Amino acid sequence: MIDGMSLHRSLTDPSLQSINFLNEVVARYPEAISFAPGAPFEEFFDEVSIEDCINRYSVHTAEKVGISFLAARRRLFQYGPSQGLIGDLIAKSLRSDFTMDIDASSIVVTVGCQEAMFLVLRALFSSTRDVLAVVEPCFPGILGAAKLLDIEVVGLEEREGSFDRRQLDRLCDHARARGKRVRALYVAPDYSNPTGSILSEEARLELLEAAGAEDFFLLEDNAYGFTADPTEARPTLKALDQDRRVIYLGTFAKIGFPGARVGFAVADQMTSTRGGGEIPLAKELAAIKSMLTVNTSPICQAVIGGLLLQHNCSLASLARKKSLFYRSNLKALLEALDRKFGTLAQLGKVSWNAPAGGFFVRLRLPVSADEALLDLSARQYGVLWTPMRIFYCSAESCPEIRLSCSNLTEALISEGVTRLAKFVQGLPGV
Amino acid sequence: MIDGMSLHRSLTDPSLQSINFLNEVVARYPEAISFAPGAPFEEFFDEVSIEDCINRYSVHTAEKVGISFLAARRRLFQYGPSQGLIGDLIAKSLRSDFTMDIDASSIVVTVGCQEAMFLVLRALFSSTRDVLAVVEPCFPGILGAAKLLDIEVVGLEEREGSFDRRQLDRLCDHARARGKRVRALYVAPDYSNPTGSILSEEARLELLEAAGAEDFFLLEDNAYGFTADPTEARPTLKALDQDRRVIYLGTFAKIGFPGARVGFAVADQMTSTRGGGEIPLAKELAAIKSMLTVNTSPICQAVIGGLLLQHNCSLASLARKKSLFYRSNLKALLEALDRKFGTLAQLGKVSWNAPAGGFFVRLRLPVSADEALLDLSARQYGVLWTPMRIFYCSAESCPEIRLSCSNLTEALISEGVTRLAKFVQGLPGV
Repeated sequence: MIDGMSLHRSLTDPSLQSINFLNEVVARYPEAISFAPGAPFEEFFDEVSIEDCINRYSVHTAEKVGISFLAARRRLFQYGPSQGLIGDLIAKSLRSDFTMDIDASSIVVTVGCQEAMFLVLRALFSSTRDVLAVVEPCFPGILGAAKLLDIEVVGLEEREGSFDRRQLDRLCDHARARGKRVRALYVAPDYSNPTGSILSEEARLELLEAAGAEDFFLLEDNAYGFTADPTEARPTLKALDQDRRVIYLGTFAKIGFPGARVGFAVADQMTSTRGGGEIPLAKELAAIKSMLTVNTSPICQAVIGGLLLQHNCSLASLARKKSLFYRSNLKALLEALDRKFGTLAQLGKVSWNAPAGGFFVRLRLPVSADEALLDLSARQYGVLWTPMRIFYCSAESCPEIRLSCSNLTEALISEGVTRLAKFVQGLPGV
Repeated sequence: MIDGMSLHRSLTDPSLQSINFLNEVVARYPEAISFAPGAPFEEFFDEVSIEDCINRYSVHTAEKVGISFLAARRRLFQYGPSQGLIGDLIAKSLRSDFTMDIDASSIVVTVGCQEAMFLVLRALFSSTRDVLAVVEPCFPGILGAAKLLDIEVVGLEEREGSFDRRQLDRLCDHARARGKRVRALYVAPDYSNPTGSILSEEARLELLEAAGAEDFFLLEDNAYGFTADPTEARPTLKALDQDRRVIYLGTFAKIGFPGARVGFAVADQMTSTRGGGEIPLAKELAAIKSMLTVNTSPICQAVIGGLLLQHNCSLASLARKKSLFYRSNLKALLEALDRKFGTLAQLGKVSWNAPAGGFFVRLRLPVSADEALLDLSARQYGVLWTPMRIFYCSAESCPEIRLSCSNLTEALISEGVTRLAKFVQGLPGV
């Protein structure tokens, strides 16, 4: 028997424990309508032919490299470069969709965005002096990756459209006063997980300015930007980045599919080597990756590469139908909330935000929302959601929940909100 | 510009740098005959149909879970459990081939064996007090994973057939004297990488006894055991493990294919939880994995699952043809060495070992074998190999090289050894 307390401290951290618990709850109530996971809509998967994608990518490689189709196919089964195979296709798509002028040598292809986060943290955080700041509430994966590396995390409170510059300055000052430094700030400027918030272009420029003034990196997570109405899309931080302050984190989990486990980091910061040369930070990330997962499955990269080729390397084209679907679902969720919670809202018992994109809505309840309450909601009312508490770096109590509309039909959204309303009406103080 | 010295220290570690350099050299001389990488023979890949494997696994899941084929297929495109999908099939194959009685709940499916190593190290090594011992020379991936986590590594010299119990005891004593402890010993008892050495059954039992006496875990890497002549196969450490001292690390890179990036850890040690319960260590590894790569690609797991199902979950059946091929190649390499190096060996200028399995032979030269020498060998003689130095935790000079015979035909092995002989005859002191 191993004493659990003798294992690494991340394993007893409340955030890791919470996520385990949530997964268990979701698995325990398979019949419940689930607003819990930010998983993409599954019917989209039926359109993907793995074999076609692999063949398309193999033809492309054969032509590009000047080898036979068979030789190109064999490459996918062998070990591959740690930095990845499809950096050039990703670079092309970033150029066409985001006017981000990135060389393929500045891209590392990763096992989902999660590995990209880990690689960036491992590279940049070299001592206990380095502190990670996160705009919170935030994606728990960044918190978990930091825990694995014993990195101290501090939270910067999210504001809709903007951020609190004075609080950010205080965080940096406070770190300095303790002999530390804020090494990087994690932020999801486009329809963040879990709140669906967005940063204005003005706030983006100010964030870049702050990063320069305080000398930290910005880790930009853009998992949900693709859900924007094209007329409302804002430039990414990376597209505005004049000073190579931004490391951009991308994923194909939502616009492709999660089962491919393909994400990437854009890290074009030039880095001095011991030999006196310089290489993009992405190459250092690849060196770390070689000791973590060796390389991202070339089979999976070929599937995503094949999808990109099918859409002429335009993420916008690849994502168009999905973007419409998710905006439509989000609208349905907000309308259902209006219908079912309007009266309670007038009484000040509940409130929610109304994002224009992303997968999520934040709903404030009159009581603290914890795992016990979730279990009650699932068991008695047949509806699942995520306590907002797990998105904060300090696990205090929180009266908010996250509602995800991504993996539901409009009919299920409507029925789910009806159940949710019954559940809320049963709460003390309502 | 980032100062490379401000990044994590693993990035300036000689072992990570060496591996980068080696990859560059190999890429620079594509026409050279390469005894360098331990990559599997590529023609085997042509027999694998990704689509067939995925379909076979989906049919299996549909029957097992009682869902439609379409629903089973959709699961592969979605997020999946961090612990993996094919633990039951792996458990079945371990039972049938190694008489290892492992429950699926004690298995975590990983992104190659490399991620399994990282997960185990992260879970077990909770403070700077914990030291990792490795039987060396050893697979550099375990050294690299330790570097990422700032884990101190000490080497136990490999002996053919046995190990030096007194040196092991001294390592443990020395750690204790410094207020530390040897937390685990990494060992590849079956045709180790890089030397092809094997531990006798007696030595295996003694190693298990030592682990109990000194209270450390054994990390058993069995990437190459499948190449054994069935009449010569020895029981794995895990099969002999009465006291749950062994964490078993497996990979499908060699008996399946590397591009799937599917490996696994068997960790059946019961672990106390804060709530007063107990869970297998594998579940803790899965919790760490959820913050590293979330889950191993279900697509890739389905491909490997499909291969296992095709062979009735017998690794022996899956590996039979490959095992014969690699033993035949190894024999061809040893015979070519006899032919071309026999005279030099009689003069005491060179020597090599003669493993009965695995991918590798260790050749001792009369001079130190470093990257510069490799570059010379590739440029002037058209033959690549791996300096043995990178397989040690302290990067001192070493006169040995590793020859891999896995991804060559017999004709290329013969020609490669002829070139190697010319190269060695040109060395000073020969």
